[in-house]
Amino acid sequence: MSKKKLFNDPIYGLISFPFEIIYDLIAHPYFQRLRRISQMGMSDMVYPGARHTRFQHALGATHLTLRALNVLLSKNINITKEEKEATCISILLHDIGHGPFSHTLENTILDIHHEDISVKFMEVLNEEFDGRLSLALSIYKNDYPKKFLHQLVSSQLDMDRMDYLIRDSYFTGVAEGVIGYDRIISMLHVSENELVIEEKGIHSVEKFLVSRRIMYWQVYLHKTSLAAERMLIKLFHRVRDLYQQGEKLDLPKSLKFFLENRIGKSELMNSPREILNHFSGLDDIDIWTTIKKCSGNQDFILNYLSSCILERKLFKIIFSDTAFDSDFIEETRQKIVAHLNVDKDHSKYLLIHGKESNQAYTTRKDEIIILNNNGSVSSISDMAEKFINTNLIIKYFLCYPRY
Amino acid sequence: MSKKKLFNDPIYGLISFPFEIIYDLIAHPYFQRLRRISQMGMSDMVYPGARHTRFQHALGATHLTLRALNVLLSKNINITKEEKEATCISILLHDIGHGPFSHTLENTILDIHHEDISVKFMEVLNEEFDGRLSLALSIYKNDYPKKFLHQLVSSQLDMDRMDYLIRDSYFTGVAEGVIGYDRIISMLHVSENELVIEEKGIHSVEKFLVSRRIMYWQVYLHKTSLAAERMLIKLFHRVRDLYQQGEKLDLPKSLKFFLENRIGKSELMNSPREILNHFSGLDDIDIWTTIKKCSGNQDFILNYLSSCILERKLFKIIFSDTAFDSDFIEETRQKIVAHLNVDKDHSKYLLIHGKESNQAYTTRKDEIIILNNNGSVSSISDMAEKFINTNLIIKYFLCYPRY
Amino acid sequence: MSKKKLFNDPIYGLISFPFEIIYDLIAHPYFQRLRRISQMGMSDMVYPGARHTRFQHALGATHLTLRALNVLLSKNINITKEEKEATCISILLHDIGHGPFSHTLENTILDIHHEDISVKFMEVLNEEFDGRLSLALSIYKNDYPKKFLHQLVSSQLDMDRMDYLIRDSYFTGVAEGVIGYDRIISMLHVSENELVIEEKGIHSVEKFLVSRRIMYWQVYLHKTSLAAERMLIKLFHRVRDLYQQGEKLDLPKSLKFFLENRIGKSELMNSPREILNHFSGLDDIDIWTTIKKCSGNQDFILNYLSSCILERKLFKIIFSDTAFDSDFIEETRQKIVAHLNVDKDHSKYLLIHGKESNQAYTTRKDEIIILNNNGSVSSISDMAEKFINTNLIIKYFLCYPRY
Amino acid sequence: MSKKKLFNDPIYGLISFPFEIIYDLIAHPYFQRLRRISQMGMSDMVYPGARHTRFQHALGATHLTLRALNVLLSKNINITKEEKEATCISILLHDIGHGPFSHTLENTILDIHHEDISVKFMEVLNEEFDGRLSLALSIYKNDYPKKFLHQLVSSQLDMDRMDYLIRDSYFTGVAEGVIGYDRIISMLHVSENELVIEEKGIHSVEKFLVSRRIMYWQVYLHKTSLAAERMLIKLFHRVRDLYQQGEKLDLPKSLKFFLENRIGKSELMNSPREILNHFSGLDDIDIWTTIKKCSGNQDFILNYLSSCILERKLFKIIFSDTAFDSDFIEETRQKIVAHLNVDKDHSKYLLIHGKESNQAYTTRKDEIIILNNNGSVSSISDMAEKFINTNLIIKYFLCYPRY
Repeated sequence: MSKKKLFNDPIYGLISFPFEIIYDLIAHPYFQRLRRISQMGMSDMVYPGARHTRFQHALGATHLTLRALNVLLSKNINITKEEKEATCISILLHDIGHGPFSHTLENTILDIHHEDISVKFMEVLNEEFDGRLSLALSIYKNDYPKKFLHQLVSSQLDMDRMDYLIRDSYFTGVAEGVIGYDRIISMLHVSENELVIEEKGIHSVEKFLVSRRIMYWQVYLHKTSLAAERMLIKLFHRVRDLYQQGEKLDLPKSLKFFLENRIGKSELMNSPREILNHFSGLDDIDIWTTIKKCSGNQDFILNYLSSCILERKLFKIIFSDTAFDSDFIEETRQKIVAHLNVDKDHSKYLLIHGKESNQAYTTRKDEIIILNNNGSVSSISDMAEKFINTNLIIKYFLCYPRY
Repeated sequence: MSKKKLFNDPIYGLISFPFEIIYDLIAHPYFQRLRRISQMGMSDMVYPGARHTRFQHALGATHLTLRALNVLLSKNINITKEEKEATCISILLHDIGHGPFSHTLENTILDIHHEDISVKFMEVLNEEFDGRLSLALSIYKNDYPKKFLHQLVSSQLDMDRMDYLIRDSYFTGVAEGVIGYDRIISMLHVSENELVIEEKGIHSVEKFLVSRRIMYWQVYLHKTSLAAERMLIKLFHRVRDLYQQGEKLDLPKSLKFFLENRIGKSELMNSPREILNHFSGLDDIDIWTTIKKCSGNQDFILNYLSSCILERKLFKIIFSDTAFDSDFIEETRQKIVAHLNVDKDHSKYLLIHGKESNQAYTTRKDEIIILNNNGSVSSISDMAEKFINTNLIIKYFLCYPRY
Repeated sequence: MSKKKLFNDPIYGLISFPFEIIYDLIAHPYFQRLRRISQMGMSDMVYPGARHTRFQHALGATHLTLRALNVLLSKNINITKEEKEATCISILLHDIGHGPFSHTLENTILDIHHEDISVKFMEVLNEEFDGRLSLALSIYKNDYPKKFLHQLVSSQLDMDRMDYLIRDSYFTGVAEGVIGYDRIISMLHVSENELVIEEKGIHSVEKFLVSRRIMYWQVYLHKTSLAAERMLIKLFHRVRDLYQQGEKLDLPKSLKFFLENRIGKSELMNSPREILNHFSGLDDIDIWTTIKKCSGNQDFILNYLSSCILERKLFKIIFSDTAFDSDFIEETRQKIVAHLNVDKDHSKYLLIHGKESNQAYTTRKDEIIILNNNGSVSSISDMAEKFINTNLIIKYFLCYPRY
Repeated sequence: MSKKKLFNDPIYGLISFPFEIIYDLIAHPYFQRLRRISQMGMSDMVYPGARHTRFQHALGATHLTLRALNVLLSKNINITKEEKEATCISILLHDIGHGPFSHTLENTILDIHHEDISVKFMEVLNEEFDGRLSLALSIYKNDYPKKFLHQLVSSQLDMDRMDYLIRDSYFTGVAEGVIGYDRIISMLHVSENELVIEEKGIHSVEKFLVSRRIMYWQVYLHKTSLAAERMLIKLFHRVRDLYQQGEKLDLPKSLKFFLENRIGKSELMNSPREILNHFSGLDDIDIWTTIKKCSGNQDFILNYLSSCILERKLFKIIFSDTAFDSDFIEETRQKIVAHLNVDKDHSKYLLIHGKESNQAYTTRKDEIIILNNNGSVSSISDMAEKFINTNLIIKYFLCYPRY
């Protein structure tokens, strides 16, 4: 009598996988750590339900990939059992290199892109699993001839984006993100080794692209969570600066390692296992503990920024379609300095400017391909009815304490 | 001990209204008839769940209007209890003039637009209710100074569209139609007597417009239901022609009245009550009974068209961005004539050409107005980020028996 | 390039089947007729959304059966491709013998149980399909050795009940009917040729049984739809009586056949094809057309009952745990006779008494079997924690015009 | 131009409150802290989506209370604006005394029941808000004459239970918890100063009680999260014991306070503000940080228990309807001692036995009252159809490392 292990997902119901190795990878401490890494960073300051983790997302994306593979198989696309397993592994681990508040802290704590860390994690796991992740790695890196398998994992219509839009929409409650993923997946096909979408699925793709764009502006770049995230970066800048000046700050062990050793790509290449072990000790708990610790600190900047985050007294943020005038920035700086009575030099931790951008769809590479009813293919930007917004939207922001 | 009458709605849950007259109007046979009029005509040929009625939609739209009015009241907009009641009545009855398969049969059975019939129904009911619908009529006709009340009932962002998008999406299962109605309604406001939407609701409005456009092409103008509807029109053309040639067809009483008497706007003005009584006897049952009766008829056209509809053997339909070439149409006609061995003259019932169009948003009149954070207003088409598709999309179609 | 035909279901999303014959059966006029047969009879008088059809339910139940079969296959239960197909056919056609307002009209229009008609339909279709339904028939009739396949189609935990609970809950909006079907299906297993449920699914089964019981009392036997259904039976009694007295009533052709010929099981055996052809011409349209026709009739009973149904002026209904006292019934009868000024003999069409009963779970036969964690099995009524309500609940009712 | 502050809730949509003070209380650091306190403790070990917080629940329960109050007002129950506000405050703050992993750690870290801490928080806040919480306190403590207001906040059918069932069901994905809250709330009424439910809502109440019972066994007392929670308690016992033996453990500041000072009810009475300030510094972060710290510790018990939790290598747990035999417990203890090679005395941290119980409904006090159609009232346990399960179910468990 065999019983299958099931995961409870509030979106897809009970999830199971037909490959033992998937369960082994999920049980690995490297992967279990994703249970403690939130998918949406500070977004729960605005959308309190948005506390879901990268653990759930990875499982969800794997589930969708499995469904997509089954759809392709039912359309007689040639996919072996090994390829199916490898594609599932590839998506399962695609985000394993994310650190806590990844998009926020990537440049403060370490100098490596999370995708490079993901690859390194896969390589180290591949050793542990006696080479059984080799095909998955090849698909992940787009080295494998059947390109469409990689496209399921990473492209403008991949199962990663599919799951995070659905999931983020479910947990935030933003109906604008609801997409017809079921329909899109049902319409997937392969033509000339590329993942394509059948013509009658075109409106679902349109809706998917619009939803993604809306989620960017309404959720991911929402002014309140943007303010919180930028304040967090500044707090960690201050932590790093003080640390480097020799201040004895009581920080979590793993965090200390990354403050004491500037870790870039070459360090990761040289001693991957050591660095990954430190890295895998790092999660949201360390960041929050640090914030809490700082709130009692006698350094004004540490105390101020951390207390504001903890009590959700977030900075004001203003947006502009063009860069802010430097005079205006200076003026604002002086007001802050006066208002908070801080050293002018310290204003760099309190006055935050920058820009955010989003492009709903890019035509530069790897376009979404439509399989027309007559069997021909065309890229989505060639469709007669121009509905795709390919503009790069840039928004400049200025963020500072309310005075 | 007072108990409130509740309606069960699968979308909004339990619905109730704070005005007795609403319940009285719902109980009226003119309104109860809407229980037998499907909202989406032949769409259940493609979306089998789409069997909801105009009755449900009218209740749903009234519910949303009530919520919108409560939002405005909570923002201190001056709305009297009488205006609130009247706006609810106005939306409750806005579709009462719809006949069965309204968009399909409007020009076959009678020559009046359903909105004119709605007005006439309201006027007749106003007499019955001793003038208590006068204010509702004034709002409906946009004669009332507080223009925003009319805009809740009829505009590019009205509660009619809001409810039918949500409802049609729920019953078809097309996720593309899911909209954040809750968010939109929460963002409604009034400025200079016009209904406006607060700036932070702009993405929800964008999503609403996109959803509506997608629903047009994916659902309302879906090729299969379009074919079925066009076949139904042709069937009724044949019924009408035969009837006028003196054929004794056994038709429902109300239908006979409209075939024997060509009813236009002037007839409606002259004897409204008589005509409305006949009209209110007409519902989906009559149309379907006629289709079933025709399926046994010895007239080939009647028999053929009705059997194809009943057994869902629908015509082929092809689309084009430009008008079909007349040679191609003639060629097709000859093939059909040969294939079905029909009189050439009868091919007019079997070869159907026409066009369908949709404009997601029009800038010509009554634009959606945004209330900016700084208190200024601007129309949505003036926004910096041009996301509104104002193109009029036209699709030509040719529809005929498969041969 | 193969493309799969998809059905749009608002509950399960896009549905497809891996067997060609399923599509052929769905396309058959016998099956297409189910598009015009409502699943819930008069329930839309109370739950206006409840207009879904037996067509949708049959597809949904087949979809769930397919999922259940795939779960069993993933647990290494031996099921051949032929058995899989046959089980799907069996459930697809399990309700094909339902007439319009089946539970209401079964004893008025014809004297055969719908399951007998379903069998006959399958037999006739089996001839048309050259014996390819033989295995499905054997499973349906429980003649096939692998009993668990029959239990998927018909038992106290079958996919028929599963789908109708989910579907009726979706379209009525009654949350009490929501069940964890996904969980139940995931927990299915086979032990000693019987369908069983793994122990950890026991709470989901409990919830399923409770939901079903609640749906009975809150929805299926709701007093308002019960009144409407009983009024409809009485209307058809009057139609039948007048017809048999020689009154010329203008009725739909198929209906006439069943009023002129008393069709019982032996007639069905003798000339199945003729009777089924008549039967398959009968649908909700015929019933409603008859109701509409009666509303203009000069016979008081016909006119009164039909108008009350059309205008939703439904009879009062009172319930009791014991049978009503005959004196009280007589008293009520006299009041009605006086109030409506009808012939005393005609009061039998206006005063309706009877009883309804429901048993949430029966221990008499075919119990739900639990597969315990230790591998043993036990019937659900043997569980330590007695949560199953096995009482037969009977409610007596009296239904009559309000006076 | 007034704009209302809105909260995004994935369940109810946009939530707002008509009272300024509600917003002020939510902004208070005491309340903001609830953002960092998970509602369901270790349940996300089984239901990964279950990461929602007490912050969200408090807002949701307040939203439902507001809806319930509006229903009662629409039925002409006399409730003043002040009472409405106070009832909302009362439910908003009803859980403010919860610490992190409250049900788990209540007896390890401190000796006071969370409801006593809630009262104390309210009293301290009442001072800060110049007595404006006095009425809320009176309702919370059930001192206020209109008893039904207290019953909305705390009873067998209160808005607290209502929200947590809905919310826990949404975030776990367990459909068994879905309840018709909308229907229940619509059926609320008041009779003789007691909250009652109209007779036609009885099935919804039944379903509510069944759902709650199922959620207990399927979710709240799920064996996996139960194991995790018990392991956490044992870990903290070890922390406490070592701490008291003088071990220098690097613990979060607030946690230290409660380990160094045994805080019971009398201490809270004597210096409430000091204790509450410490208490409000304590959240999930502190617990998780402690777990992470312990995982590197050289003490075997600390290291073992914490690593098992972090890597989700949870103890085996077995259940029994009767208490476990002491011989069997001893035998198990010896196996663990041998297997892990630990000091026998330390086995008390590794072998966990105890019991859990749940009673779906109690008749001892404060029964749910039904308002019958005839105006009389009866308690739910007096209903003819006995569907309420009033048994106290006890399950004994034994939990220990897998060997």
